[in-house]
Amino acid sequence: MGKKLTKRKDDYSKWYNELVVGADLAENSGVRGCMVIKPYGFAIWEKMQAALDKMFKDTGHENAYFPLFIPKSYLSKEASHVEGFAKECAVVTHYRLKNADDGSGIIVDPDAKLEEELIVRPTSETIIWDTYRRWIQSYRDLPLLINQWANVVRWEMRTRLFLRTAEFLWQEGHTAHATKEEAIEEAEQMMNVYAEFAEKHMAMPVIRGLKTETERFAGAVETYCIEALMQDGKALQAGTSHFLGQNFAKAFDVKFANKEGKQEYVWATSWGVSTRLMGALIMSHSDDNGLVLPPKLAPIQVVIVPIYKGLEQLDAISEKVGPLVKELRAKGISVKYDDRDTQKPGFKFNEYELKGVPVRLAIGQRDLANGTYEVARRDTLQKEIVPMDKVVEKIEFLLEDIQKNIYQKALDFKASHITEVNSYDEFKTVLEEKGGFISAHWDGTPETENRIKEETKATIRCIPIDGKNEAGTCMVTGKTSNKRVLFAKAY
Amino acid sequence: MGKKLTKRKDDYSKWYNELVVGADLAENSGVRGCMVIKPYGFAIWEKMQAALDKMFKDTGHENAYFPLFIPKSYLSKEASHVEGFAKECAVVTHYRLKNADDGSGIIVDPDAKLEEELIVRPTSETIIWDTYRRWIQSYRDLPLLINQWANVVRWEMRTRLFLRTAEFLWQEGHTAHATKEEAIEEAEQMMNVYAEFAEKHMAMPVIRGLKTETERFAGAVETYCIEALMQDGKALQAGTSHFLGQNFAKAFDVKFANKEGKQEYVWATSWGVSTRLMGALIMSHSDDNGLVLPPKLAPIQVVIVPIYKGLEQLDAISEKVGPLVKELRAKGISVKYDDRDTQKPGFKFNEYELKGVPVRLAIGQRDLANGTYEVARRDTLQKEIVPMDKVVEKIEFLLEDIQKNIYQKALDFKASHITEVNSYDEFKTVLEEKGGFISAHWDGTPETENRIKEETKATIRCIPIDGKNEAGTCMVTGKTSNKRVLFAKAY
Ligand SMILES: [Zn+2]
Ligand SMILES: [Zn+2]
Repeated sequence: MGKKLTKRKDDYSKWYNELVVGADLAENSGVRGCMVIKPYGFAIWEKMQAALDKMFKDTGHENAYFPLFIPKSYLSKEASHVEGFAKECAVVTHYRLKNADDGSGIIVDPDAKLEEELIVRPTSETIIWDTYRRWIQSYRDLPLLINQWANVVRWEMRTRLFLRTAEFLWQEGHTAHATKEEAIEEAEQMMNVYAEFAEKHMAMPVIRGLKTETERFAGAVETYCIEALMQDGKALQAGTSHFLGQNFAKAFDVKFANKEGKQEYVWATSWGVSTRLMGALIMSHSDDNGLVLPPKLAPIQVVIVPIYKGLEQLDAISEKVGPLVKELRAKGISVKYDDRDTQKPGFKFNEYELKGVPVRLAIGQRDLANGTYEVARRDTLQKEIVPMDKVVEKIEFLLEDIQKNIYQKALDFKASHITEVNSYDEFKTVLEEKGGFISAHWDGTPETENRIKEETKATIRCIPIDGKNEAGTCMVTGKTSNKRVLFAKAY
Repeated sequence: MGKKLTKRKDDYSKWYNELVVGADLAENSGVRGCMVIKPYGFAIWEKMQAALDKMFKDTGHENAYFPLFIPKSYLSKEASHVEGFAKECAVVTHYRLKNADDGSGIIVDPDAKLEEELIVRPTSETIIWDTYRRWIQSYRDLPLLINQWANVVRWEMRTRLFLRTAEFLWQEGHTAHATKEEAIEEAEQMMNVYAEFAEKHMAMPVIRGLKTETERFAGAVETYCIEALMQDGKALQAGTSHFLGQNFAKAFDVKFANKEGKQEYVWATSWGVSTRLMGALIMSHSDDNGLVLPPKLAPIQVVIVPIYKGLEQLDAISEKVGPLVKELRAKGISVKYDDRDTQKPGFKFNEYELKGVPVRLAIGQRDLANGTYEVARRDTLQKEIVPMDKVVEKIEFLLEDIQKNIYQKALDFKASHITEVNSYDEFKTVLEEKGGFISAHWDGTPETENRIKEETKATIRCIPIDGKNEAGTCMVTGKTSNKRVLFAKAY
């Protein structure tokens, strides 16, 4: 606290790291690539979880819990799946420690080697479909609509707080269906649930789309996604929903008897969002003073700071503030009255600005005399003097208005950062000078996609769901194309 | 479903296993010792979590999240701690898989060996105190009151669903304090929170006490616990709260500047309950027909089963049931209207009995004509006919009454199963013929405690907090004792 953040325009990446640590969201731990999510950061994640969990349950899903460990042989059963995850697996090989015979300390007991190595789950399709084989016999057992909140591990070499960590928290939905159509509908539904959560709760506009074959989840037939745009013009994949076809049903031999009594393989989906959303949230709205939080996800929505000299003045203020706090809490608004005497008001103002508290009230001697509060909103940093009998109304207005305002701001930014280009030169120029999403024709081949990635670092973020058909030619090869796709550099 | 459970008197352990699987609570997975918690079981756990989480927050704690992995060197820093956990550690040694050169399949890549092995957390004191060193500088940073909901792994050779599994879910509180007194108060407070949760929510009476040195947590100065009594006369440790002294502060060099600016080591507590509570819940109340759930933790509090022939009759019933469901939900009561036409009413009755749904309503043609419901309560299996306009009132009464009744039943059972004995012979007889807690004098030495354990399999469950001082002599050695302790065979 107290130290200024690096400015975004000077070093966006440094600004992000300083902000995550400075706002008490997370920090690196002594374990390579694993973060500690601090209480303030975790409180935001809990709000995200609660909102998502309700949306999952409202669409008929139930929670369950599956093992952390996956036998190596399970992971190997779906060929493209193991191919996709093999390079980043944490592997448990032993189940005991012991004192070294030479007294040098604690060592892994070589006699306690597992017969089969266990992988710390990077995702749970395999262990879950091994379970579903026991749960599904008949069409009466379908659909099976299950979600799990869990930690997963993908051994990343270059990590960044929230955005890319070896261990992260997420939810993974795994559903089983009798028909292909129903499974596709489910995958699309969950993409839409994610989009609604991103837009309504995180105030973060997203583009819905399909991944190209290259960018698809390992084991999926089709990957739906939502893509968001960060303030530095880079895209961030905020959630994915996969139509898995019958790949896992075949790998784990999960069949059901249909109404005619015939055995068929089950159709599958899986879908997930993770603590990566915290990174997206931070980079969508925050400014050079610190975090800007949408009121719906703010652990503290309103903070009240008394300005006083001596206990008598504080008592007089507290007498006014007490009933206000009560009234706001009764309305379900989370309020903190910060009457700590170990810190000065200026310090507190900076702290809550850094932590992104949407509304700040200050009250001093003049306010007491005049019957007013000074009310500041975090998004625009505007302040105004509000009579005490209007302050609740004002706060309610601000909490809604800030949510709307930061969404609109992000929406405008996104709209002004989708650029149509018709040549590869233009593509490169826009990518370097402006950033954002670039809408261009592409010939549909992985070869061209890879060439563009190698030459420019831009990837195809998605084939937008609501993109219109339009005849054109690939900006690189000149081959025909019937739809534009969205490129960007991405997190 | 359909198959009868083994009776408790015939084989209590078999009854338990059949019930856990039959009621859709959990099952074994393909991973040795790891369970799958099924949606219905997980819904009960979620209710437990929600209630506990609120109690933790009401006592000033915040949630956070710490890494799954603990470097071997961290675990080794507190001598008695590593001693206690070394024999059951899952160890990650590698971070990559690859295709075998001989084409035999996927193998662990020998080139991807970790420099330092990582332990899958069996508990998080070490990684957390390594973090607290960075968070605590001054008395102003204290107390630090943090809780984590997490999965942990202890490699158990003999496992049982919920009671003893290699991976389990739990919460672990880890607090840091400026004074010894405050840390002890915290440890005692959390034991009391657990006791209140067990009694008010789980309807499970407990005894509060202190563990003997032998039974203490590895690294603790004092372990507080709550002990419950199962229907078969065996005790179950339902929660523990540890006063850790300065052991972890010293191992991880965590000091703070006190008000006088002097450096002191920080005082610590930790406390936890786990999915083991699910086992305790099941064994406290259930009967030969299946699960009996306290209404406060029941995912479905009321089920309504229509009895009908043909769609016309069902429609007439549904018309009556619809508004009732709405009214009950508005009161916060969770209701399921089971109008599946794939199963007969008798099947449904058995299913909900097995699943422990507290209140069951049935409605058929005669009920429709008379304006009544048949209302059955799960705890006593009593049924009565209730007029429709009295049924909401009846349900509200039953939900409270069942909660009270099963608590009282368990309380009476416990009261009648605490037996005072004054000789070792009497001790052995009561232990074999009656079971339950045995209150006896003991000379306070680990030697005698171990001898009793070896000879009888009974352990000292605790030194009860509210036990009165009473001069006596140890039943085994005849040495003097000033307080009785509680022995039992235990889960
Ligand atoms: Zn996309
Ligand atoms: Zn005890």
